[in-house]
Amino acid sequence: MFHNNHKFIHNISVKKPLIHNITNYVTINDCANILLACGASPIMADDPMEVEEITSISNGLVINTGTLHENTITSMLKAGKKANELNLPIILDPVGICVSKFRMETIMKLLKEIQFTVIRGNLSEIKGIDKGVGLSKGVDVLASDEITEDNLEETIEFTKLISKKIGAILVITGAYDIITNGEVAFVVQNGHPMMSKITGTGCMLTSLIGAFCGANSDYYLEATVAGVCTMGFCGEVAYQRMIKEDGGTASLKIQLIDYISKITDDLLKKGARYETK
Amino acid sequence: MFHNNHKFIHNISVKKPLIHNITNYVTINDCANILLACGASPIMADDPMEVEEITSISNGLVINTGTLHENTITSMLKAGKKANELNLPIILDPVGICVSKFRMETIMKLLKEIQFTVIRGNLSEIKGIDKGVGLSKGVDVLASDEITEDNLEETIEFTKLISKKIGAILVITGAYDIITNGEVAFVVQNGHPMMSKITGTGCMLTSLIGAFCGANSDYYLEATVAGVCTMGFCGEVAYQRMIKEDGGTASLKIQLIDYISKITDDLLKKGARYETK
Amino acid sequence: MFHNNHKFIHNISVKKPLIHNITNYVTINDCANILLACGASPIMADDPMEVEEITSISNGLVINTGTLHENTITSMLKAGKKANELNLPIILDPVGICVSKFRMETIMKLLKEIQFTVIRGNLSEIKGIDKGVGLSKGVDVLASDEITEDNLEETIEFTKLISKKIGAILVITGAYDIITNGEVAFVVQNGHPMMSKITGTGCMLTSLIGAFCGANSDYYLEATVAGVCTMGFCGEVAYQRMIKEDGGTASLKIQLIDYISKITDDLLKKGARYETK
Repeated sequence: MFHNNHKFIHNISVKKPLIHNITNYVTINDCANILLACGASPIMADDPMEVEEITSISNGLVINTGTLHENTITSMLKAGKKANELNLPIILDPVGICVSKFRMETIMKLLKEIQFTVIRGNLSEIKGIDKGVGLSKGVDVLASDEITEDNLEETIEFTKLISKKIGAILVITGAYDIITNGEVAFVVQNGHPMMSKITGTGCMLTSLIGAFCGANSDYYLEATVAGVCTMGFCGEVAYQRMIKEDGGTASLKIQLIDYISKITDDLLKKGARYETK
Repeated sequence: MFHNNHKFIHNISVKKPLIHNITNYVTINDCANILLACGASPIMADDPMEVEEITSISNGLVINTGTLHENTITSMLKAGKKANELNLPIILDPVGICVSKFRMETIMKLLKEIQFTVIRGNLSEIKGIDKGVGLSKGVDVLASDEITEDNLEETIEFTKLISKKIGAILVITGAYDIITNGEVAFVVQNGHPMMSKITGTGCMLTSLIGAFCGANSDYYLEATVAGVCTMGFCGEVAYQRMIKEDGGTASLKIQLIDYISKITDDLLKKGARYETK
Repeated sequence: MFHNNHKFIHNISVKKPLIHNITNYVTINDCANILLACGASPIMADDPMEVEEITSISNGLVINTGTLHENTITSMLKAGKKANELNLPIILDPVGICVSKFRMETIMKLLKEIQFTVIRGNLSEIKGIDKGVGLSKGVDVLASDEITEDNLEETIEFTKLISKKIGAILVITGAYDIITNGEVAFVVQNGHPMMSKITGTGCMLTSLIGAFCGANSDYYLEATVAGVCTMGFCGEVAYQRMIKEDGGTASLKIQLIDYISKITDDLLKKGARYETK
């Protein structure tokens, strides 16, 4: 990914891509701040009256179902179709797809009517997308769906299959992160388990991928991998700094966004830990 | 409360209770983060289309009227009834009950149709609940309703009375916190006045009580007291650390959530300051 | 402004003005926290069923279109008219006025039906208000609309003109901040460019102006200037502290709110950098 010295982060700071987010109200502030921190420009807007216009001036669209409302479904569909029309990258975060029929049916509808560029979720969520049914405990991954060394190979194969079926890059995050376009798969080992103790690290990553894709539109797969590595590596640095100052989960979030605002392509190159499968 | 060595916090980290929050959009992120920090799993969802299903997979329900909307009232009623059906603990935070007829009438309706386990508010809010009318300056307690050493005994008696009438554990927070099931009352003296300079310390406490009750369902009263002591004691530690680093109100919030992510039953035992009345 | 030793900040902490915010869901928490930090009392409420009652008990109203929804327009109109009736200061933040017809038309309607006391935006937004049409890239200022030494004089004259036309104090924020009531203009040079890397510094300033006006109702113009200087100066101190601790954008926000919670009239007097034009 990095051997060709493509400067993914530099491109964000130069192009300042405007990323349109239709997202949840829990982590909306963190998503806006992480986009600003990495050099992108966020716009959060979800009223059906304006989403098409806003998508039209944007460089990427992020759709997140974390606090789904009936009214925003219309907005998601309108914005998604407009983004498809304009060939913009669209990133889907199917938060909590398995917690209700309402979310499952909505996300299935989104998948039918919108061609997504990237879909990011945990393994339970991606399984939900595949089968159209699913079980989960809230918005967290099921214990039986955690990615371990033992099920890694099999999970990669499974992810490639769904990726091909849907025609989108898939990102499964967990102890190992898997990114695939159906042909090639990347396994990323950056990150720290404590990141799951902050609400919205998943949502933030999804928005971050929006920025990476929005500013690197010729390399969606590699840009996605770079985004995943960036989040994970910044999380590792944040964890070290948090421990040093004897902090806890709230400090971890501050340190994470802080380091996202300081990361460069060179730092990322040194910190990224990934392999191709 | 602690003499029987019941491990309230340990139970949260082991059982990881899923707490469904129908809450306001001001402090929703902090509520999710404090739940994660203490070891619980938060889910924030308020669309009428999905709340029953979500309550069904949860271990507790928190209803908070901080930014009440017409549509969410239906959700509160549906979720509350489902929680009652399933015998889940339900915590009510009647934020701003006295600022509008809309909130007063809604909360009265909630009280009529849902059996709450715990209700937490300041004295003005609890008086509002009792009388169905009330005065307040915004969402803060009236100066005449502040709990002092002078009115403590009388306030305890009053709180016991309302608790019996409503059939719920009441938590009145202030300079002294009073927790009662109508029979026994606990007075907690943990906390620091500066905590009121952060928006959402009340909301966060309410969600925290949800986690304590959700993971300790045989001891709702004691779990509630433990939750109140935890919040107050962590606030004290946070204040000390904030002063040491020459910080202000934003640092106080960070330190508070940080320490919530580190508190243990042993630390709480040493820090809790409460007595039975 | 400060020569008459009017104690703007002291007045906030003594009068504790209740500021009613109808605002966006991205920065709502930060707006509430900055109001608390400066000594005011925030209330965030946007349901049409209750906004009039809430405005009635408030000392000022802030309207922010950052995440405009159809339903909240009614609330903005109702609250605005009530505030006019009661002679309360009303501050408008026309966030993203140029990103959609929906926002443009809504804000034009608000301007027609409500007499605002202060309007704060970047130059692109204020131009949008003037012409009823506009271009912008998201919610940020257009590069061609940045205020520089070269266009400062001309921008001041332009701002005075629009201020007279609308009959409201205008605040244009940028590298230079311009505040004018159409007759006198103040140019403020406090602040740091990195503040634009935090979402909501504009929204927070607007809410802060609400507090300054709410507690200093005889001096709206000077109170607004004091609010702008306070935000900028606290941003400078925050930046210094952030650098010292090797932080990033998230730390900057924490330090900013921290210092807002500690600023006094004396500190402000020393730190404010402004001149009259």
